[in-house]
Amino acid sequence: MGLVVIGVDLGGTNLRTALVSQNGAVADKVKEPTRASDGHAKVVQKLIESIKAQQVRALRSGNAVAAVGVGVPGVIHAHTGVVVKSPNFPDWNNLPLKKDLEASLALPVFIENDANAAALGEQWRGAGQGIKSMILLTLGTGVGGGIILDGRIWAGADGMAGEIGHMTIMPDGRRCGCGNTGCLEMYASSRGIVMTYQERSSLTAMITSEEIYQSARDGDVLSGDVLKDMGRLLGIGIANLINIFNPEMIVIGGGVKDAWPLFIESTRAEIRKRAFEYPATRTKIVPSMLGDDAGVIGAAALAFQKLNTVH
Amino acid sequence: MGLVVIGVDLGGTNLRTALVSQNGAVADKVKEPTRASDGHAKVVQKLIESIKAQQVRALRSGNAVAAVGVGVPGVIHAHTGVVVKSPNFPDWNNLPLKKDLEASLALPVFIENDANAAALGEQWRGAGQGIKSMILLTLGTGVGGGIILDGRIWAGADGMAGEIGHMTIMPDGRRCGCGNTGCLEMYASSRGIVMTYQERSSLTAMITSEEIYQSARDGDVLSGDVLKDMGRLLGIGIANLINIFNPEMIVIGGGVKDAWPLFIESTRAEIRKRAFEYPATRTKIVPSMLGDDAGVIGAAALAFQKLNTVH
Repeated sequence: MGLVVIGVDLGGTNLRTALVSQNGAVADKVKEPTRASDGHAKVVQKLIESIKAQQVRALRSGNAVAAVGVGVPGVIHAHTGVVVKSPNFPDWNNLPLKKDLEASLALPVFIENDANAAALGEQWRGAGQGIKSMILLTLGTGVGGGIILDGRIWAGADGMAGEIGHMTIMPDGRRCGCGNTGCLEMYASSRGIVMTYQERSSLTAMITSEEIYQSARDGDVLSGDVLKDMGRLLGIGIANLINIFNPEMIVIGGGVKDAWPLFIESTRAEIRKRAFEYPATRTKIVPSMLGDDAGVIGAAALAFQKLNTVH
Repeated sequence: MGLVVIGVDLGGTNLRTALVSQNGAVADKVKEPTRASDGHAKVVQKLIESIKAQQVRALRSGNAVAAVGVGVPGVIHAHTGVVVKSPNFPDWNNLPLKKDLEASLALPVFIENDANAAALGEQWRGAGQGIKSMILLTLGTGVGGGIILDGRIWAGADGMAGEIGHMTIMPDGRRCGCGNTGCLEMYASSRGIVMTYQERSSLTAMITSEEIYQSARDGDVLSGDVLKDMGRLLGIGIANLINIFNPEMIVIGGGVKDAWPLFIESTRAEIRKRAFEYPATRTKIVPSMLGDDAGVIGAAALAFQKLNTVH
């Protein structure tokens, strides 16, 4: 018998589960629709069924499931396993997910913010292998963050750390959904890129960030400049992280990563301008490697850490 | 016999040493001029003599010295005990201070950045007692920072973390000595306060930050507004720290702390505007308590931590 854990990535759209071994090998990946709009009772029920199905698969392949790790978007009280609030699950308020799952599964369950879990995944089996201090920035619709220090998630006093997307980089800038103005997320996300493009063009029709990347690749100057500008503003945020943390590595993931060659030089130039030379030079800025698997692998890494069988 | 360590705070102007017991009691405080301009050889010699004199005092009072902790301004490679660069000691370049002191003293010596040491001091015996995650901001001529996570200094991959004063809060703002523009230090320091005052007044004569505090206390509107504005900009930096770290406490020290009632409400208002509500509400923002003793106490705390006798 081998020892595995079940890694779970509970997104607003998709629920991903997988069996993950102690060396990070992933088996039996399953992706199902989450159906967040069905409400918390049904989503939790669905989650329990999917995890139980993975237990059966594990047994069939001769593996024992030691624990379950779950990454959930939103504000997570990691120590107690309570989902305080989640933008993707509007009706979840202080939902005791760990308790609910453990009651049904009779397995230890560990809950973490999804960006934190993804960061741990990248550090364990992705871009950050062998790296002890690393910050993951997930540039998607918004900007998520996960901080790994000494090989562990820095979750903060209440499990709410890592909100790097809500660092102010433009004090009088764009209004963010969080209530602040000028958050990094309002510039270095796919939404931010579209906003910048629309501000600078006469375009009133809808355009997607992918269309902007493609048009920049095709030589459109405005699209290229919009992405360079995004890179520059991202560089302000990363320079701040370098001066504050002196990390070994910054990993950039999320959909915006697809535009990497279109923005990264502007990012690096801005970091050189703003961060202290030595830590700036030594910090590796790299794209994420695990893609959609980061969440399940990271959630599994967390479960193994908590079980003290690896790390 | 009791067990003590020698805490050393090596400033550009003053060299402070003291005997510190395992419970943080401070005895035999000595303050001497550093004479940085005499050059590194003489300063290190002076340091050795002062530490030896403390060894003699310890022995007389029936105490054994277990180790020495030294806080030094500048870029410190904490793991190796090398002073990479220090603004206060211009001729120190990659000075192997730990090695030099250990060779002469036959005692274990631990070197740390002075702001990091002060943060550890405040956490051990000052404002942060009982607190595990805490960030110290020292608002002096510049802005220093020290980050305590899980009761320990977060020194970064190279011992260069905590440069919170060089977080960009105004991308196109004032040029800083570090090469960046718009660093927190250019606004939330005594120098920044004087610059703001001079920008807004017709004054061309010299004025000190203390004079600005006094004139604000006496009801001068301009001085009051300058300090409120400083508080607001400090609030941007602290809101970023709260969103990134979700710490239990932010401690504010340094000379600018004397103006506390003149700026702190603006700081708190800005934090409420910009940081996530729960972590912002739970983070205590308090003045430092140890004053000039923070350095020696923190350096001693570091030495005790490294010896594993406390914490």
